[in-house]
Amino acid sequence: MATSAAHGEDSPYFAGWRAYDEDPYDPITNPSGVIQMGLAENQVSFDLLEEYLKEHPEASDCGAGFRENALFQDYHGLKSFRKAMASFMETIRGGKARFDPDRIVLTAGATAANELLTFILANPGDALLVPTPYYPGFDRDLRWRTGVNIVPVSCDSAAGFQVTAGALQAAYDEAVAAGTRVRGLLITNPSNPLGTTVERAVLEDVLDFVARNDVHLISDEIYSGSVFAAPDLVSVAELVEERRARGGDGDIAGRVHVVYSLSKDLGLPGFRVGVVYSYNDAVVAAARRMSSFTLVSSQTQRTLAAMLSDAAFAAAYVRSNRALLRERHGHVVAGLRRAGVSCLRGNAGLFVWVDMRRLLDEATVAGELRLWRRVIAEAKLNISPGSSCHCQEPGWFRVCFANMSLETLDVALHRMSCFIKKCNKTMQEQEH
Amino acid sequence: MATSAAHGEDSPYFAGWRAYDEDPYDPITNPSGVIQMGLAENQVSFDLLEEYLKEHPEASDCGAGFRENALFQDYHGLKSFRKAMASFMETIRGGKARFDPDRIVLTAGATAANELLTFILANPGDALLVPTPYYPGFDRDLRWRTGVNIVPVSCDSAAGFQVTAGALQAAYDEAVAAGTRVRGLLITNPSNPLGTTVERAVLEDVLDFVARNDVHLISDEIYSGSVFAAPDLVSVAELVEERRARGGDGDIAGRVHVVYSLSKDLGLPGFRVGVVYSYNDAVVAAARRMSSFTLVSSQTQRTLAAMLSDAAFAAAYVRSNRALLRERHGHVVAGLRRAGVSCLRGNAGLFVWVDMRRLLDEATVAGELRLWRRVIAEAKLNISPGSSCHCQEPGWFRVCFANMSLETLDVALHRMSCFIKKCNKTMQEQEH
Repeated sequence: MATSAAHGEDSPYFAGWRAYDEDPYDPITNPSGVIQMGLAENQVSFDLLEEYLKEHPEASDCGAGFRENALFQDYHGLKSFRKAMASFMETIRGGKARFDPDRIVLTAGATAANELLTFILANPGDALLVPTPYYPGFDRDLRWRTGVNIVPVSCDSAAGFQVTAGALQAAYDEAVAAGTRVRGLLITNPSNPLGTTVERAVLEDVLDFVARNDVHLISDEIYSGSVFAAPDLVSVAELVEERRARGGDGDIAGRVHVVYSLSKDLGLPGFRVGVVYSYNDAVVAAARRMSSFTLVSSQTQRTLAAMLSDAAFAAAYVRSNRALLRERHGHVVAGLRRAGVSCLRGNAGLFVWVDMRRLLDEATVAGELRLWRRVIAEAKLNISPGSSCHCQEPGWFRVCFANMSLETLDVALHRMSCFIKKCNKTMQEQEH
Repeated sequence: MATSAAHGEDSPYFAGWRAYDEDPYDPITNPSGVIQMGLAENQVSFDLLEEYLKEHPEASDCGAGFRENALFQDYHGLKSFRKAMASFMETIRGGKARFDPDRIVLTAGATAANELLTFILANPGDALLVPTPYYPGFDRDLRWRTGVNIVPVSCDSAAGFQVTAGALQAAYDEAVAAGTRVRGLLITNPSNPLGTTVERAVLEDVLDFVARNDVHLISDEIYSGSVFAAPDLVSVAELVEERRARGGDGDIAGRVHVVYSLSKDLGLPGFRVGVVYSYNDAVVAAARRMSSFTLVSSQTQRTLAAMLSDAAFAAAYVRSNRALLRERHGHVVAGLRRAGVSCLRGNAGLFVWVDMRRLLDEATVAGELRLWRRVIAEAKLNISPGSSCHCQEPGWFRVCFANMSLETLDVALHRMSCFIKKCNKTMQEQEH
């Protein structure tokens, strides 16, 4: 395992990060350096967090209660923090779903949460279905230490990359026919890398698929607080409650598990806060025991419990974060359109899914990677090629927009515009 | 895995915790409740930490630098914190070993550090040798998710429970003959549950064994700062450096991996700080990648970097902590001796290893567990039976002394004294 490549670090996704690390852009000291657009980080709302902590020094103070807090290593997590997390998850969903603090299992980030659910739901050699394109880190999180395989489910640009019931069942049947035991399905909603929410009808199809084939659903909703335009997020939690209310849900709830995190919506990846939320008692119990390997610092639990239990702050933060992301998103989409490339229509997340198919010298992964290397070398932008997300159609790229200042973003858009002009010119010359 | 018992939570070690949880002692509100002596927690030196944080509010302040800190999720960990950890590990060893900050991999506690090394060094079905008695949590940490087995190596009270070269080789040969691939050996130094350091000669034997059989050594040294009496700790790090200086070490360094943590020596289990320190480049690289699943909160890294990089504070803390533990240890040993039971001669840790063999109704695990249940029910003390630590000789118990006030400890010693008197009386009556 020490020498296995299953951690996926050698993919272009991470290779691009290294290109940035070796020559990072700085407006003053390195204005021709690489701009990092491959990192889904949210810096647009930091002012709000900083302001809150400045006004509430007691939230981060190590003084009163330090002793109890420093000793607190119970894998249940601080009750006050779990309550605040449940409430925050409800706020994000506009009150359309309820979360029980006793079903919240804390982990050191969503990375651990997804691995932990995979360990629990599947044995080595089993498989999980994952619609493509998907977050490159899943190759590490779901497979590396668990020995579980990923069966990709191909999604089509013609359908806005929404997964279809037919594609799911076909992938499942094919895997089963090949002797693989498929234990479940993982979706991201909102989707990383697409920046779109899953349509309600699609989500209903997914639940029907889960029930019909007796498998589990992991719904990774770490961008649920970053839905900034219509349609609203429909969380699987809503559908579970609706089916329960209707009765005869065929125990769908016991097959549904939600992953959440504060790394994206709150922009605190360094604080390492992830959540497993399961409707299945046995999974909650196993996840809680397993969280011993990945507990959240009690100091951090305490700080965030104070912050998120302030319901007025939490609601104002979510509102403001959405407005800022919407503005950023509009700015990027307009800038790219002016430059001559279009994006998949998105309503969520910290990135856009950009259609650069017409710029490829050939419609293959090799062609995509050639274009990607040119974008790094010539435009000095690190964006993520769709193939690193296992996208089946060459020519799509994920471009992050929330991990930099507006000024840097404008530099990036200008560079992209120049690069595309150059490509256009070359192509015109070749046509003549 | 969700329903497997390999996490070991059903052992008497954890069952005793539940007895405490259900009826916890409180001097005012529940003076006849159960006193928890099964928890190796260090509360004796909290005043020093509290004082430091009070005098240095900037250490825990979320103000300046909050943005960079909140975003910091690099699996290398904060350089300032790794440097402070390396320096602290050197301070603890009286400067007799050096640690390179670039070989420090941070994990969310030693639980994760031990699991991570097991994942790296062994494949499912392989085995690690572990001398008995050993920390009950290893059954979870080394086995549960890795699929690796533990081969116990029996240690004898007649030799002070120090592992012998003969026992190691015999256990190894027997496992190999049975078709098991043994990948390494895990020792705790100082030992949990024994409260003793590993003798220098024994450690030399261990390294010879490792070299001879081409296996790895994990030296779990999470109590290395809690050695409070002679002989001093001899860390494997010292021996590695000595062998290197002598030359011809047969690349022993590449087979040695040290685990450390701030949960015991600094008494901060809630902050979740563990360390993998390896002399092997490939293991460092793999551990670093793998630490993505178990990163330490950057907020906590920052607070502790400030605290531990204050070398004067760190040295004063270690000195004071040792003096307080020595005092506590002497108090417990004397109290138990007066009550009529003796302890293994200890010089480290937060517990004593108590010889209650003469109180057993029969010299079996069943007899030991009967005595244990009586200690909980009649003396209202939760201590850990040796069998939960896989001790081969029935009648030994681990008794923790640093997780309570001196007043509570005196109540516990009084209860133990009364209980033993009652046992003595019953035994005398039975003899007549």
